[in-house]
Amino acid sequence: MFELWSQFPNIAAQLKEVHTLMQERLTMKSGPLQAILDELLATRGKLLRPGLFLLFSNLNTSSSLKANNESEIKIAASLELLYMATLVHDEIIDDSPLRRGKQTVQSKYGKDIAVYTGDLLFTVMFDLVVEAFNGTPYVQRNVKVMRELLIGELDQMTHRYNLNVTVDDYLFNAQHKTAALFQLACEEGAYLAGLNETQIYDASQVGRYMGIAFQIYDDILDYTSSEEVLNKPVLEDLSQGVYTLPLLLARQEHKSLFDPYLLKKDQLTEQEAQEVNRYVLKYEGVKKAQQVAEHYTQKALDHLHQLPDTPTRQGIESIILLLLERKQ
Amino acid sequence: MFELWSQFPNIAAQLKEVHTLMQERLTMKSGPLQAILDELLATRGKLLRPGLFLLFSNLNTSSSLKANNESEIKIAASLELLYMATLVHDEIIDDSPLRRGKQTVQSKYGKDIAVYTGDLLFTVMFDLVVEAFNGTPYVQRNVKVMRELLIGELDQMTHRYNLNVTVDDYLFNAQHKTAALFQLACEEGAYLAGLNETQIYDASQVGRYMGIAFQIYDDILDYTSSEEVLNKPVLEDLSQGVYTLPLLLARQEHKSLFDPYLLKKDQLTEQEAQEVNRYVLKYEGVKKAQQVAEHYTQKALDHLHQLPDTPTRQGIESIILLLLERKQ
Repeated sequence: MFELWSQFPNIAAQLKEVHTLMQERLTMKSGPLQAILDELLATRGKLLRPGLFLLFSNLNTSSSLKANNESEIKIAASLELLYMATLVHDEIIDDSPLRRGKQTVQSKYGKDIAVYTGDLLFTVMFDLVVEAFNGTPYVQRNVKVMRELLIGELDQMTHRYNLNVTVDDYLFNAQHKTAALFQLACEEGAYLAGLNETQIYDASQVGRYMGIAFQIYDDILDYTSSEEVLNKPVLEDLSQGVYTLPLLLARQEHKSLFDPYLLKKDQLTEQEAQEVNRYVLKYEGVKKAQQVAEHYTQKALDHLHQLPDTPTRQGIESIILLLLERKQ
Repeated sequence: MFELWSQFPNIAAQLKEVHTLMQERLTMKSGPLQAILDELLATRGKLLRPGLFLLFSNLNTSSSLKANNESEIKIAASLELLYMATLVHDEIIDDSPLRRGKQTVQSKYGKDIAVYTGDLLFTVMFDLVVEAFNGTPYVQRNVKVMRELLIGELDQMTHRYNLNVTVDDYLFNAQHKTAALFQLACEEGAYLAGLNETQIYDASQVGRYMGIAFQIYDDILDYTSSEEVLNKPVLEDLSQGVYTLPLLLARQEHKSLFDPYLLKKDQLTEQEAQEVNRYVLKYEGVKKAQQVAEHYTQKALDHLHQLPDTPTRQGIESIILLLLERKQ
């Protein structure tokens, strides 16, 4: 969990507190969900959103508006919980068998249980948000981001197997399903750091563009990784009719090559999916998608450079470069 | 929708505003859920929770703390939306084919869509709660009630086909899955009416005991109604292993009669379920359950009589008696 954050001992220490708080809040007196919650907590992710939030909240430690550490830990945990809750519900829709190399809740325990697990995570997340933020506009912001994530996923579902999906549709989707939460993390951090309105806006744009780039790299991995590396089935999106940026860009001038495969919809065999994969690479879908991702990474950095030049800002820059230049 | 409220022209008029507000907030710019949301809105219920809330908020109109009408409409709508959201998710777990005589979202559109529909309703509900209540303890109360409803449903799921289920388990369950929301409605109303702390407590107890009685009468209907009257499959709970109060009370001294049926679990035929139904009636399960419901109705009235004696209080009393003396 903490490798990414090892260069920031303070953040790594706070992330341990975040994890402990999540454990406390995800303890139910009675209930069939406890085993599931424990498993979810054990499958530790990178705590990317909490970590980013904590970095931003440290941008300006001299401020008198600096929140006490307790609120920070709560908000950091709420961001991870919102992410987890939407994941658990998305896996129901996607029928995903694996996540981070482990069985998903829906595949191991059934869709029914996954519904309540996600709902429970939403309530715990809102508890923390309200405890830390009641009376501020950020309670409402959290509700709206939850809805944005939902709209992103709904939008993706609607476009399945749709050959008319455009690059703009893809970017709308990435903005909603992924970037909105990165944006919230950076924005809430900047707010608690006591930055001014313009700076909070810049922080939110760092998160936004970072999130879009992050999603693009994630989708690139689908076309460049083996199942062992990815810890989830490869080409899962393709076989479910979710056409991501590498495919869209490779297909632009080679529709007659791609479309006979895509028109097979859920009848596409694994071998055919591998053939599509090869065409995506051959017609530079991955390379072009990387260029788009680099464009958004640069936009994130441009906004970052508007913020106070402190060691924390340099740290954020190094995290952005680390995350968004993942080995392909 | 408004028959129940026809004796209260003010409430009926406000409930029309509640319905209009829900329509506005459940309008999505784009999206596959619109048809579903429209159908959900068209299947108007009694607006029981909003109506109760509005009555309580009128208990003391002289108060300077009286909320403006806009906040009242928002909170009233939020109560109905919380109810609708949990219904849509519960139907996934229960595999329910019908509700109020219409196909459920999960049976018509699939469990996947039902997950997102419920999630969307939660976000719209929280939006309204935060708009009206940000900075008050009622934001947190709403989150906790959402979790209580969830725990009630989880608890019910865990106890399926469990022959050791007790009357206490049943009451715990009714408190969580049903009474918690009635309690919230009355409590929020009393708060907006500007009542004092003791009175708000009494109001919440009115809701609580009313909710328990309401759930008991609802479960009694399962053993006394035909499908046409009930608008949903009869004996659905029994065949799904949910043992409600009439069965529990009839079985107390006749276990050897009931248990061979119950041990068949989901293999119980429709004819066998009808036989169980006859035994429930023969051994006075319904009659005894009615007595328990009357006990809770009386407790609700006792707390109501602690509140200011106004025409609105008399109105609440008549609604309680109307609701809780339904024809068997």
